[in-house]
Amino acid sequence: MKTYIDCISCFIKQAIEVGRLVSDDEIVHHKLIRKVVDRLRDYDFQLSPPEMGQYIYEQARLISGVKDPYKKQKKDFNHFATELYDEFHQAVTQSADPVRAAILLAISGNIIDFGTGHSMDHDKIDENIRKTIAEPLDDTVLTQFKEQTASAEKILYIADNAGEIVFDKLLIELLPTKKITVVVRGGYIINDVTMQDAIDIGLTDIVTVIDNGDNSPGCVLDRCSDQFKQALAETDMVIAKGQGNFESLENSGYNIFFLLKAKCSVLAKHIGVKQGSIVFRK
Amino acid sequence: MKTYIDCISCFIKQAIEVGRLVSDDEIVHHKLIRKVVDRLRDYDFQLSPPEMGQYIYEQARLISGVKDPYKKQKKDFNHFATELYDEFHQAVTQSADPVRAAILLAISGNIIDFGTGHSMDHDKIDENIRKTIAEPLDDTVLTQFKEQTASAEKILYIADNAGEIVFDKLLIELLPTKKITVVVRGGYIINDVTMQDAIDIGLTDIVTVIDNGDNSPGCVLDRCSDQFKQALAETDMVIAKGQGNFESLENSGYNIFFLLKAKCSVLAKHIGVKQGSIVFRK
Repeated sequence: MKTYIDCISCFIKQAIEVGRLVSDDEIVHHKLIRKVVDRLRDYDFQLSPPEMGQYIYEQARLISGVKDPYKKQKKDFNHFATELYDEFHQAVTQSADPVRAAILLAISGNIIDFGTGHSMDHDKIDENIRKTIAEPLDDTVLTQFKEQTASAEKILYIADNAGEIVFDKLLIELLPTKKITVVVRGGYIINDVTMQDAIDIGLTDIVTVIDNGDNSPGCVLDRCSDQFKQALAETDMVIAKGQGNFESLENSGYNIFFLLKAKCSVLAKHIGVKQGSIVFRK
Repeated sequence: MKTYIDCISCFIKQAIEVGRLVSDDEIVHHKLIRKVVDRLRDYDFQLSPPEMGQYIYEQARLISGVKDPYKKQKKDFNHFATELYDEFHQAVTQSADPVRAAILLAISGNIIDFGTGHSMDHDKIDENIRKTIAEPLDDTVLTQFKEQTASAEKILYIADNAGEIVFDKLLIELLPTKKITVVVRGGYIINDVTMQDAIDIGLTDIVTVIDNGDNSPGCVLDRCSDQFKQALAETDMVIAKGQGNFESLENSGYNIFFLLKAKCSVLAKHIGVKQGSIVFRK
């Protein structure tokens, strides 16, 4: 997905939010904003939004020296989701269609995202997840998903955020784990999932986990490691979570099932759904 | 009020909105956004937000050639408010305290503003106005307002938006009209009130109306005409409507009663009220 001019206000809001997170000093905030504005002057709007996202958080890091601004939030949401795990695991296994239920949960967990300006209050997140898992799912795509997870030799599961990864684990446990490699980010970016999160929530105990060699809030192929690109080239089926992965992989040509919440109005309009909708499409 | 970094997303949104209003051509939208981003690079954040506002709409005009993008909306809201005039006029005159009721109505009319990104749906505006007129008003400021309108020799009433001006008329009719000079903008800017609107709604029939010689969405004194600045210097009491006038005149040192809705979160935080509150202060 290209960057729309409507994305700019969101970039600015992200810069202000991370700026205030890494420093109380207004000079630091202005310095960061000026960097972002400078970059926007010559920005190529054909690039996907995660490319600009990477720049914003990289600048926040360079200016402030804070390497992992959302460390606390990631730990907090890994813990929050882990506390819900047993309840939802039971709900999934007792469901008439466990895979369907687990896909809905994995999508609903995508609401845990500090990059979109939504409230990250635990109660609101909990309520949102419970609402989302009651939503309908496209049966044609679901059938394809089940057939391909059975027939594929290699599956890449590109994860998105900390906390959310616990819900991904619920889904992954229902799939043939030996075929699956989970991909996390190669560096700190917003509350996106890293290897540390995968270890912390026990995902590395059940499945192979690699990182993509880059710290964009998505999968910007030009920036990813050769190891990841090779894994992608050798895979039959990709499951990609979240907006950032969608925005950066939409036109990549791979066989990808996208699972996400359309959290922002620009993306929702781009793919023709209502903002807040669950998206499950190939 | 200085410009906060939080104002930037709003500037961008305003540029996108007016860009799409004056042209369907994406190249025009990008050209305008680039102008705004360029200006932000060297922007002096000690200036008040209306200074940037003026720049955005001026650039939209220069790029597109459309002189008065909100002409239709201004006519529409003058008509909409005029349709409500009789009903509210009766409510005011039958009220136990007509001036108090009229002040609340004048403030409630301030919701008619195309610069703040709120819905300008007639039904929502109507509902919002009816809610606002039931709100409490600071009695100390009200007493001062009544005393000063009685004792002042010259009163300047600096208006804000088309449509809203009909509600201002309701208040002005209760005051000593011979002492009052109403000030409108000196050029087209968003849906801000101009001389044509004052004529259209019959305000010029009951009171002297001048313009301030500038087309900022506020009263940026450095840019206003000598005629207006002289009138301001000779006045005993100023009544200033809306956010733009507040932002640009807050620290001007004149004896000003501000009447506005705190429509944006930045201004609300700046003056310590909840967003959406009515503001009536000296």
